[in-house]
Amino acid sequence: LQMPSLYQRRQFPVALCIFQIMFILAFSLCAHFNEHALPDNKSKVYVNTDYPLFQDIHVMSLVGFGFLMAFLKRYGFAAVSMNLLLCAFVSQWAMLLRGFLSQEFRESWSFTISIEEIMIADLSCTPILISMGALIGRFTPMQFVVMGFIETAVCTAVEYLIITVMHCNDGGRSLVIHAFGAYFGLAVSRTARKVRMISKRGTIRVVGEDAFDDNSEDGIDHSELFSMIGTLFLWIFFPSFNAAVQEPEDARIRAVINTYLSMTSCTVITFMLTSLTDRQGRFNMIHIQSSTLAGGVAIGSVANAILQPWHSLLIGGIAAIISVFGHTHLQPRLRKSFLGVTDTCGVHNLHGLPGILSGVCSIIIVLVYDPSYYGDSLYQIYPYFAGGEKQGDRDKYDQALFQALAIIIVFVSATVAGLITGCILRCSCVNQMSDPTGAHAENADRAGFYYGLPQDVLWRSMEMQREIQMRYRDHESNEIY
Amino acid sequence: LQMPSLYQRRQFPVALCIFQIMFILAFSLCAHFNEHALPDNKSKVYVNTDYPLFQDIHVMSLVGFGFLMAFLKRYGFAAVSMNLLLCAFVSQWAMLLRGFLSQEFRESWSFTISIEEIMIADLSCTPILISMGALIGRFTPMQFVVMGFIETAVCTAVEYLIITVMHCNDGGRSLVIHAFGAYFGLAVSRTARKVRMISKRGTIRVVGEDAFDDNSEDGIDHSELFSMIGTLFLWIFFPSFNAAVQEPEDARIRAVINTYLSMTSCTVITFMLTSLTDRQGRFNMIHIQSSTLAGGVAIGSVANAILQPWHSLLIGGIAAIISVFGHTHLQPRLRKSFLGVTDTCGVHNLHGLPGILSGVCSIIIVLVYDPSYYGDSLYQIYPYFAGGEKQGDRDKYDQALFQALAIIIVFVSATVAGLITGCILRCSCVNQMSDPTGAHAENADRAGFYYGLPQDVLWRSMEMQREIQMRYRDHESNEIY
Amino acid sequence: LQMPSLYQRRQFPVALCIFQIMFILAFSLCAHFNEHALPDNKSKVYVNTDYPLFQDIHVMSLVGFGFLMAFLKRYGFAAVSMNLLLCAFVSQWAMLLRGFLSQEFRESWSFTISIEEIMIADLSCTPILISMGALIGRFTPMQFVVMGFIETAVCTAVEYLIITVMHCNDGGRSLVIHAFGAYFGLAVSRTARKVRMISKRGTIRVVGEDAFDDNSEDGIDHSELFSMIGTLFLWIFFPSFNAAVQEPEDARIRAVINTYLSMTSCTVITFMLTSLTDRQGRFNMIHIQSSTLAGGVAIGSVANAILQPWHSLLIGGIAAIISVFGHTHLQPRLRKSFLGVTDTCGVHNLHGLPGILSGVCSIIIVLVYDPSYYGDSLYQIYPYFAGGEKQGDRDKYDQALFQALAIIIVFVSATVAGLITGCILRCSCVNQMSDPTGAHAENADRAGFYYGLPQDVLWRSMEMQREIQMRYRDHESNEIY
Repeated sequence: LQMPSLYQRRQFPVALCIFQIMFILAFSLCAHFNEHALPDNKSKVYVNTDYPLFQDIHVMSLVGFGFLMAFLKRYGFAAVSMNLLLCAFVSQWAMLLRGFLSQEFRESWSFTISIEEIMIADLSCTPILISMGALIGRFTPMQFVVMGFIETAVCTAVEYLIITVMHCNDGGRSLVIHAFGAYFGLAVSRTARKVRMISKRGTIRVVGEDAFDDNSEDGIDHSELFSMIGTLFLWIFFPSFNAAVQEPEDARIRAVINTYLSMTSCTVITFMLTSLTDRQGRFNMIHIQSSTLAGGVAIGSVANAILQPWHSLLIGGIAAIISVFGHTHLQPRLRKSFLGVTDTCGVHNLHGLPGILSGVCSIIIVLVYDPSYYGDSLYQIYPYFAGGEKQGDRDKYDQALFQALAIIIVFVSATVAGLITGCILRCSCVNQMSDPTGAHAENADRAGFYYGLPQDVLWRSMEMQREIQMRYRDHESNEIY
Repeated sequence: LQMPSLYQRRQFPVALCIFQIMFILAFSLCAHFNEHALPDNKSKVYVNTDYPLFQDIHVMSLVGFGFLMAFLKRYGFAAVSMNLLLCAFVSQWAMLLRGFLSQEFRESWSFTISIEEIMIADLSCTPILISMGALIGRFTPMQFVVMGFIETAVCTAVEYLIITVMHCNDGGRSLVIHAFGAYFGLAVSRTARKVRMISKRGTIRVVGEDAFDDNSEDGIDHSELFSMIGTLFLWIFFPSFNAAVQEPEDARIRAVINTYLSMTSCTVITFMLTSLTDRQGRFNMIHIQSSTLAGGVAIGSVANAILQPWHSLLIGGIAAIISVFGHTHLQPRLRKSFLGVTDTCGVHNLHGLPGILSGVCSIIIVLVYDPSYYGDSLYQIYPYFAGGEKQGDRDKYDQALFQALAIIIVFVSATVAGLITGCILRCSCVNQMSDPTGAHAENADRAGFYYGLPQDVLWRSMEMQREIQMRYRDHESNEIY
Repeated sequence: LQMPSLYQRRQFPVALCIFQIMFILAFSLCAHFNEHALPDNKSKVYVNTDYPLFQDIHVMSLVGFGFLMAFLKRYGFAAVSMNLLLCAFVSQWAMLLRGFLSQEFRESWSFTISIEEIMIADLSCTPILISMGALIGRFTPMQFVVMGFIETAVCTAVEYLIITVMHCNDGGRSLVIHAFGAYFGLAVSRTARKVRMISKRGTIRVVGEDAFDDNSEDGIDHSELFSMIGTLFLWIFFPSFNAAVQEPEDARIRAVINTYLSMTSCTVITFMLTSLTDRQGRFNMIHIQSSTLAGGVAIGSVANAILQPWHSLLIGGIAAIISVFGHTHLQPRLRKSFLGVTDTCGVHNLHGLPGILSGVCSIIIVLVYDPSYYGDSLYQIYPYFAGGEKQGDRDKYDQALFQALAIIIVFVSATVAGLITGCILRCSCVNQMSDPTGAHAENADRAGFYYGLPQDVLWRSMEMQREIQMRYRDHESNEIY
């Protein structure tokens, strides 16, 4: 109930300021434009070559993820604005990290910035936004910024290892972005959990209950509609996400079509399952908001490699089954088991499980498809296959082994890094929510919520619990009969 | 008041499951990628050739139509999510149908899938979304899925007849998409109506009343703002819609510019008329949300053919007059007359009348413009004109006759198919709302609303009536004086 | 309390009708398509060359600016719909004005319309939307339309003078669009002010207060989330805005990258400062909604000229400092001082100050950068430098002088034109709000609000004051300590 100390109140702006000055210094020392952005360059590149794809991904990062997390009634604005801050913060840091890892930097101590670089930096924001989805409502801005700083570094290193060193095929980055972000977030959530109550009550939302709640005087809950804005923009631009860094152009076209097909199939199966898993055949909002997108995640790693349209439809359908199953059966058990992992937005079911599925698909596809289907394109999808420029010596069984190894590396590195990061974020030197659901919280008056935290982004225990209870109700007793 | 039967509760997911399995089987047998998406293709096609246009239409289908229908307070989430399901469901079915009708399928029993195909499949969702607009709030998900299945088949056949067989010019598809969707929906609404009360009370919304309602504690109604999200995205991307399937490139550029000009003029005239038709000069929300878009529909069929900018401005202005007239004078009479057609979102005034207007314009334009203006492009706009590759023998009077015939075919086929579909949807084997506004409804307790329907998408009679009454009030007594 | 007169009620639609008929006549006399939109043109231009950039700007104008102004609870719908009307109205007028000023018109009494023209017409809507931001809630639709008509004419003339006659570099149009729009709006606000009360109370909104307000039963205020939709779409597409009219292609690519970098840096510094300027380290919603965009405005004039990425980061950081400083220190003083300027949306801090900063940057850049860096591109950025096609004779000091002159011209012309326009709008022949906050307002019953104004767009004094008071509270006593 005491006022936060000066240290607590000013820690966040001072940290941001130091980070931003560091970024500006690093850019001034090492970054320069690539040739296409320099005057008098003869080989002109047309701005609309990559730019529309970049803008699609930009809409996904800012509007899509931002509004997807806006479903918590008292947390919508905080979700959208923290999302914006993390995008701006992480994309600068990711550009630097990728520059430091580049061939050019090792040779000349400097690296280039182009439209492709800022597109990839935008992709690099995604794992942090996914991790944020698992933690939102329980972390302070300070904690999110520190987490973003660490996670970007680890994630970039893992991506470098898997794509550049191991030459695995993860075209749409389902493993290194989606699965990594989800398991990192869950591991942080496990270590940093202080809030026992939420892990007992859960955050399952049931559509039907709300609609008949006598207190909801103003009809449908608008927070859910804001969340649908996020869902729809992610749904629409997912083909761009998976196609962004594909080469050559025919792989890019395949990635667009396969992702689209996978998502249509996934959406139909999700509506089927959400009705089937409800006792009275009703729709569950959270399935529609999240599982309909699982098809795009599940196809990611293989969107450039699939040559039969119906394979994409099939993968989309399986993704929906896994994702809805995760929501209805796995998430409550994760919360209750010895693991005790709380997952606010259910990122495990939208990004974690479908990401792993995508890795498994990449093993199956490399084993099932004859390499000769791909002709010379083969070496752009699997660069280390025998006979290519890189003078690799892999056959399809070797490649499958490497794809399997990639899944394990992503899972282990994300979990370990997440656990360590969680420990760092629990250090008393970092601003934290101070036991908002403890015994004190019940009696805490208004002043009690000021712990040096930006107030709006403080998780308000009592209202949130009430909200959760209202939404939760008898969902767990809903079995299929 | 009894619980729904197992059949009623599980009908919807089982039907979806069967449809999706059928789709996957059909794709596995017949669909393959076109050459641009296959490896080792030498004639590389750049992904951004059609893809940005596709994404614009994608935003219109999902965000535009979804949120346009979100104005019903207790129905917003259902509208947005049913819209998503129908898009995913119909686009697969449309790809198959178009494939079956293709030349390639007749020759080789298989057809190709490319970015152009998925763009056209997205266009094919539009008539179903329009029909849904006429029916929303009164149909179950099961009914919508069955309707989507039938309507897509009929609509694809009619489009094939008018464009491919009869060689009419309907570049922006105003006749075969907008007019067809609207009249199909109205015909279904006529047959399937069970709800007398709503046909008496109507759904006219008046802006001014709401703003001064003492009960609206939280200021402006947010549902209306969500609806404006839909309006704006439709407004923005309408040029892409009309330009999507145009050829050659100069026709595409004309379609963009003409549509844009038509919409600006239509918007100004709509604001003029909405103020003029109100006794105190106020704006009517429903006019702004719907009639501002009529200009895009009305220019559709001729957007590729108009060569004078001011002709587009004129057509936009006329579209606004027809659309606002439809809202203020025609819709109440349609409801009250022996026809008794209820039109929840007023699709007749946004898509029906302007679609017919577009057909009429296409007759006038072909008569007024000298064919020599078009040079060789003539045969891409009117392929059967004398002298072209197709060895057609039409002069401009013949072509005008065919354009007139197209209007009649669309109107008759949509109405007849809609009436038949309405009868099918009234069969007792299909889940229906069971008389929600009847005498029982007043006394129905909570359990009374479970009739084997997804609860959220159940039309809640009492609240909706109250809402309608609140909005309706003294609008009908507003005359111009 | 009397009914509005027929003149008052019908003034707005009659004026719109006259304007629209004038536009159609002018188009019919003077406008024709350019060669790329005409049939049988051999030098085909691909529709996606400029079209995706046009659509990005279109989204900014309609969704971005529309929703950014939707934060006033009782004014959201009016803001979004007036925004739509002004876009449609002004873009036609701007196309005509630019046509009349073109070389072609002087020679042949006619001008061309192409996709580039409608893109520039869309840019021309922006100053009017910015001015509207300063005035919203206090002006009638009639006043906005008249203002839009005058401002477009003045703004087009000023732009012609600065870009075409004086050959200044204002690539992203920060001076002639952003700064002009802001100072024009403020000058109109100064002249037209009738509402003393609002100038005393102000419109500062504090995030934290709302969240703990006992009356806000439904959690976070949704109006603020709608406003965030606007912010995010502006944030996302700002690179397109600054790149739209750049030439050659390398300048366009630079404009994209520099704008993106500037905005990321600006966003991080804004979050730092918003926390730092709050006593308890909380975030201020209005800073996040507006100052995060200042980086895009501040880089505008020099986005094509900057060759070092870190310069963009630096400018973005400075823009954030100026913008937040404007919100916290300048705006209250402007309101209270003898100037007495009310600025509803704080456009001075988002467009005015950063626009001037952009002009100052353009002076510094031209002095600091060696012209030889640009090679032949120099003459596309600074066309009158010695040695170019235009046979100019400027060195970098001359050019800096002209850039400085541009700032002064924009500031003076915007202020003078705004003051004169404000006087015109106070004429009794134009519909105005009739003293809604005067003594009568307190006792005014419902009928009292009908003064011949579209009711929804009437500024409702009492509710708005209460709203402002609720939001305002103890913000002014928040000092940094």
